Amino acid sequence: MKLSRSGELVLLDNIRKKLGKRKKSVLTGIGDDAAVLKADRRKLVTTTDMMLEGVHFDLRLTTPRQLGFKLVSVNVSDVYAMGAEPAFVLLGIAVPGDTDGKFIDEFLIGVEDACSKYKVSVVGGDVSASRKHMALSATLMGYANTTIQRSGAKVGQGIYVTGTLGDSSCGLGLLKKIGRPVNLARPLNKPLKWSTMKPLIQRHLMPLARKPGVWSKKATAMIDISDGLLIDLRRLCAESKRGARIYADSIPISRELKAAAESMRRDPLEFALSGGEDYELLFTSNAKGTIRGATRIGEITRSGTVLVLSDGTEKRFGSEGYQHFK
Amino acid sequence: MKLSRSGELVLLDNIRKKLGKRKKSVLTGIGDDAAVLKADRRKLVTTTDMMLEGVHFDLRLTTPRQLGFKLVSVNVSDVYAMGAEPAFVLLGIAVPGDTDGKFIDEFLIGVEDACSKYKVSVVGGDVSASRKHMALSATLMGYANTTIQRSGAKVGQGIYVTGTLGDSSCGLGLLKKIGRPVNLARPLNKPLKWSTMKPLIQRHLMPLARKPGVWSKKATAMIDISDGLLIDLRRLCAESKRGARIYADSIPISRELKAAAESMRRDPLEFALSGGEDYELLFTSNAKGTIRGATRIGEITRSGTVLVLSDGTEKRFGSEGYQHFK
Repeated sequence: MKLSRSGELVLLDNIRKKLGKRKKSVLTGIGDDAAVLKADRRKLVTTTDMMLEGVHFDLRLTTPRQLGFKLVSVNVSDVYAMGAEPAFVLLGIAVPGDTDGKFIDEFLIGVEDACSKYKVSVVGGDVSASRKHMALSATLMGYANTTIQRSGAKVGQGIYVTGTLGDSSCGLGLLKKIGRPVNLARPLNKPLKWSTMKPLIQRHLMPLARKPGVWSKKATAMIDISDGLLIDLRRLCAESKRGARIYADSIPISRELKAAAESMRRDPLEFALSGGEDYELLFTSNAKGTIRGATRIGEITRSGTVLVLSDGTEKRFGSEGYQHFK
Repeated sequence: MKLSRSGELVLLDNIRKKLGKRKKSVLTGIGDDAAVLKADRRKLVTTTDMMLEGVHFDLRLTTPRQLGFKLVSVNVSDVYAMGAEPAFVLLGIAVPGDTDGKFIDEFLIGVEDACSKYKVSVVGGDVSASRKHMALSATLMGYANTTIQRSGAKVGQGIYVTGTLGDSSCGLGLLKKIGRPVNLARPLNKPLKWSTMKPLIQRHLMPLARKPGVWSKKATAMIDISDGLLIDLRRLCAESKRGARIYADSIPISRELKAAAESMRRDPLEFALSGGEDYELLFTSNAKGTIRGATRIGEITRSGTVLVLSDGTEKRFGSEGYQHFK
């Protein structure tokens, strides 16, 4: 049934039934003017992100379920990047009146999948019609005793990243070649082998927010990598009023990205430096040795942001990362 | 300067400067992955609302400053409707790349005006490009020791509303006749006298969220009137699993609405019953006498929702209020 027939109230009721499960700390959930949550002794950490059709997602390349999952993940990533524990989410869903109810059902399953994964409860939201394109928003709330700002980096501290970088943007490139939504449970062997493509495409469509490890107790500054390593490192440096020197050879690149980039005749480093939406963590630390679950890629300097290439040449970089308006 | 030239980062910096003022309870505000707020002993009350161009607002009829003010007000209204005190707001702003920077400046002044009025701090948000239409969102957070749900109404309790109803939707009707944005500081005497039009138009463009009075300590259920008296009363009744009987003659209608409706040859009651966006409070109470700052319009019954007209005839009503998808 189309939304224009079933109406907003039916949709709200549907959401309430589907996402009604809630923690004990949720005193009033979906269905009142606002959600009411038990007091918590820790600091409240909160963030919001919008996802707009045609800007942040393309319905020709994603399923509604993947979209719902990603909406929650990208916001959880910001809460993790503060060293906090996610707890609640508010949703904003605006879709054209001719959207099929099935689309919304699938979208909500994706939201629910992510909420289970991150132990987050949907506590409320707002549903309305949009004119042409979908507009989605999510606000995440979490708690922490101690948080990790972007501004705490000091000269000489190591710069670290979790996971591998560039996978998501390479995955998007592959998706564009495929040209239609991909069911991740159904192997596809074009243009590349499924074992190469799957982790890259999955990283783009259903990114997993990176939970900080025990190392986070020693992190002095932290940010999540949403717009690409270079731009997000620049942000961390700007807030800390410091510079950085990173080494191209140290940047963690997955086997799959190497294989895919080779067949696309692209430099995998390009994806890793400027590709967005990896949702890995970038942090600084005084640690001397290696940090389990992270890779050291450089160190904090007095000023300037420099990339040292394999041959030893140094390249200054600005905010070449993805900027929405440029 | 157009946003596409100045870029997202400049806009973010601009917002940070303009809305950077913050309470002591804001430990980390705009400029990190998420906001960090001091722990509070009270319950956390939170709500989100989206406002979309072409659905919730028309840039041919509103100034950016009025828009910014309203975005905050409608969310504060939901927090007030829980009997809570608003404290923090997160913004989501998505505008087309060719939006003039001056538009954003004015919009932020409106946001700031409202934040000062309600003693709310902007603690973060998200800025991005939209394809064609603007999409705005706000998430309000507040605190309360005790909250007032929609579900607490009992048979025999009185039904009350604050202020007067229908002004906002009549104001929208007038605005449509005027056909362009109205500067509320510049009197206009067409189609009606300014003294009649101003309060109605102002109520639509820059609604003031209604702060609950001391009576709220005795309120058993409460909701804000955003979609019209009938639909919002139905919501309160549905949550309380009760009915209602209200009296047409008791519904508070302003002098200005009466005058404007007469000249438009419309029944003012129609605006008061079904017009949305008044942002007054509807509540139930055991109080026997009158309640200062509110008008008794009826009482809670076992079931069914009934409007008693001036001549004594009874009219059952459903959810005739505004529904976005219908």
